[in-house]
Amino acid sequence: MSNHHQDTIVAIATPAGIGAIGMIRVSGSKAIDLVQSCFKGKKLRAQKPNTIHFGQILDQDQHIIDEVLVSLFHAPRSYTRENLVEISCHGSPYILQKICETLIHNGGRPAEPGEFTLRAFLNGQLDLSQAEAVADLIQAQNKSSHDLAMQQMRGGYSNILQNLRVRLIEFASLVELELDFAEEDVEFAKRDDLSRFIIQMIDVIQSMIQSFEIGNVIKNGIQTVIAGRPNAGKSTLLNKLLNEERAIVSSVPGTTRDTIEEALILEGIEFKLIDTAGIREAQDEIENMGILKTFEKIHSATLLLYIFDIQNMSAQEVLDDLKNISLNSDSIILIGNKTDGPNALMNQSKFETLDSCIFISAATNINLDKLKQQMVHRALHGAPINFSNPIVSNIRHIEALNLTKRSLQQVISNLQSGISNELTAQDIRTALYHLGTITGQISSEDLLDSIFRNFCIGK
Amino acid sequence: MSNHHQDTIVAIATPAGIGAIGMIRVSGSKAIDLVQSCFKGKKLRAQKPNTIHFGQILDQDQHIIDEVLVSLFHAPRSYTRENLVEISCHGSPYILQKICETLIHNGGRPAEPGEFTLRAFLNGQLDLSQAEAVADLIQAQNKSSHDLAMQQMRGGYSNILQNLRVRLIEFASLVELELDFAEEDVEFAKRDDLSRFIIQMIDVIQSMIQSFEIGNVIKNGIQTVIAGRPNAGKSTLLNKLLNEERAIVSSVPGTTRDTIEEALILEGIEFKLIDTAGIREAQDEIENMGILKTFEKIHSATLLLYIFDIQNMSAQEVLDDLKNISLNSDSIILIGNKTDGPNALMNQSKFETLDSCIFISAATNINLDKLKQQMVHRALHGAPINFSNPIVSNIRHIEALNLTKRSLQQVISNLQSGISNELTAQDIRTALYHLGTITGQISSEDLLDSIFRNFCIGK
Repeated sequence: MSNHHQDTIVAIATPAGIGAIGMIRVSGSKAIDLVQSCFKGKKLRAQKPNTIHFGQILDQDQHIIDEVLVSLFHAPRSYTRENLVEISCHGSPYILQKICETLIHNGGRPAEPGEFTLRAFLNGQLDLSQAEAVADLIQAQNKSSHDLAMQQMRGGYSNILQNLRVRLIEFASLVELELDFAEEDVEFAKRDDLSRFIIQMIDVIQSMIQSFEIGNVIKNGIQTVIAGRPNAGKSTLLNKLLNEERAIVSSVPGTTRDTIEEALILEGIEFKLIDTAGIREAQDEIENMGILKTFEKIHSATLLLYIFDIQNMSAQEVLDDLKNISLNSDSIILIGNKTDGPNALMNQSKFETLDSCIFISAATNINLDKLKQQMVHRALHGAPINFSNPIVSNIRHIEALNLTKRSLQQVISNLQSGISNELTAQDIRTALYHLGTITGQISSEDLLDSIFRNFCIGK
Repeated sequence: MSNHHQDTIVAIATPAGIGAIGMIRVSGSKAIDLVQSCFKGKKLRAQKPNTIHFGQILDQDQHIIDEVLVSLFHAPRSYTRENLVEISCHGSPYILQKICETLIHNGGRPAEPGEFTLRAFLNGQLDLSQAEAVADLIQAQNKSSHDLAMQQMRGGYSNILQNLRVRLIEFASLVELELDFAEEDVEFAKRDDLSRFIIQMIDVIQSMIQSFEIGNVIKNGIQTVIAGRPNAGKSTLLNKLLNEERAIVSSVPGTTRDTIEEALILEGIEFKLIDTAGIREAQDEIENMGILKTFEKIHSATLLLYIFDIQNMSAQEVLDDLKNISLNSDSIILIGNKTDGPNALMNQSKFETLDSCIFISAATNINLDKLKQQMVHRALHGAPINFSNPIVSNIRHIEALNLTKRSLQQVISNLQSGISNELTAQDIRTALYHLGTITGQISSEDLLDSIFRNFCIGK
């Protein structure tokens, strides 16, 4: 870490491109002096924190690069807990570039991706799981993923984990103390209390691990494949769900050869809808490739919308297709289409033997709302999103929670088999280690690098 | 103008896309109250101007949209001279959109393009030519166009025009006063002084009109076409000028069919380099279309780099090509290529009769610097850019200057022919009118609309 984190760092913080306003951020103990080195207008050192000052930024030849507003933040009351200056200028890539060049020429260093947030973490402004949520928040493009990231950024399950960790450390120190008095056979940590606590802790961790099923859906959306025989109404269904003419719809079987992916947001959850070529015997080589691709897509689906034409399909043909598809039935919604046709009720009755089939008319919008409800229900495994329980969406956290759980289970098994205190102490330490990596009490350069390199520059 | 300019306006001011930081601007007498309506953290009304405040923006359901920094500016010390608030949030399009929606739901109005700068103009913060320079500044992508826009934004020739206008108004009022005393045959405005001043004014305006030749090159760059016979080295020259492998170079004549445009910046001037297909008899239909296109491009060129192979061309063939091209010789640079080949000096001597030919070797980088100097020299008509004289780059200003000049010339002709004072007074008023449209003392809704609709949203 060393000197690297003492540098004054400089970065463009606004998105690339032309706009009304652009912003450059400068952080480090010498940030104010660095900005002053090219700022004309006021003595910035003499100004109060959290104030804004008009002036000009000059290049090395004392030419005006831009008229700017400079915002001053004094350590530790800033995002990075260091002295921090924000320069707000005209949103011209040329101007932003020139100001950065000048600051770097005068002693600043270009910031690495996420380095401002890294410093915020290193200086104790936020823990590691909160820092990771900052990146999630910026990426979030719908309400659920936004709310989840916001909750995590504002503390989320950090407190829960922190409390568990503190109590486990208490037990650990007692157990380790016993080791010092091993010959005296004392028991500072009551084994019943320890067992009870660890079982309780495993419960909490287990429910966090389970929450990933929802957390992952919220954060990454749900891969939803629409499949069925040619002319079953797949493309019409896609268009109606999206309310637009996205796929080319025709009544010639086999129209859809390439897969098409579109995002549908329902109740804040993103369904990545993928239309496919029809399932049937291919008539030519190109179509055959399309059908192979269809099966690839079907097997990558988290949710499959299997649609069939109630007018010219039998229950047996549907079952045959489902057998070919060989996906877990929890992942499939069966959709009987074309209830707008003749003899609709009689046709529907053919499929009474099929479990939980939804009958719709994609062309005339019948029962599409019911289908959407069902999609949300399946995505969330039947329960609405409950943000009052912790929801984990970060795969790194899940891995750490799994490793923590495994060590805790080992502690329980040690306690039950009366194995030596040394091994129990070791397993508790391992659990503490993994737990600590989530919030960042335990971290390494490598871990931090791998987390922050995915951030925006300037964040 | 009416109520429209009393509204509180709201816009995203940072470029579109994901970034570390995004900003929303709010301007109008009720801007602070509007932001307070969804801001939790502090009483903004109670805070001093030019200060920054941390807090949360809440949506209509009191859910946190984001943690933000709010910057306060009080009228008239703000960009718009109105109360102005800047909300700095995470650079997520979702968050920016949600904050705007909330502000608009609470009574704000989405700002039109350039509406913040329009208000700055209407409130006397800057004149119209300065407001126009704000848009130029944001668009400027190289040093010269940046410096030119910056100079104009900071006053530029506004003062010169303003001083001329004030003196002309003095004369106008004296001439009009004479009209009131027409029967007494008095002369309040000395005709010699008036003539002298107007001739001087025409001089100033004429040199501003002439500066457009440079101003336009600085602002819009210079269309530079590279032409020549097949295999003369056009693509190699383009690549060498750009220092990269942009065009596909091969030794098969007729390789370059599509035109390619690339920007080369030399001494702050942008040369828009356009490579072309070779000038020759086409072998097939497609190539023929390429050659037709070449001539189209040649005739649209401001600068033509005509390149020929000194090894297998004669001076007569070059002259034949130039005759076909039929461009003003000031617009053409003749380039003899392949001085790296055998008998180079002897080959060069064949072209002694040609005026000002530059001999280069594109392949081995010989004399390319000399060529670049020559390109800059031609673009600037022989003189370096001199920012201490006014340079006009705005075509609207040139039109107004021409109309002003025409009216002033009419005044001179009136004075010489001893025509009635009524007509002279009328011509002076017309000159004043056109001059006033440049800096905006004279403006109309239509004019303002046409100027500001090309601005960024949020500026």
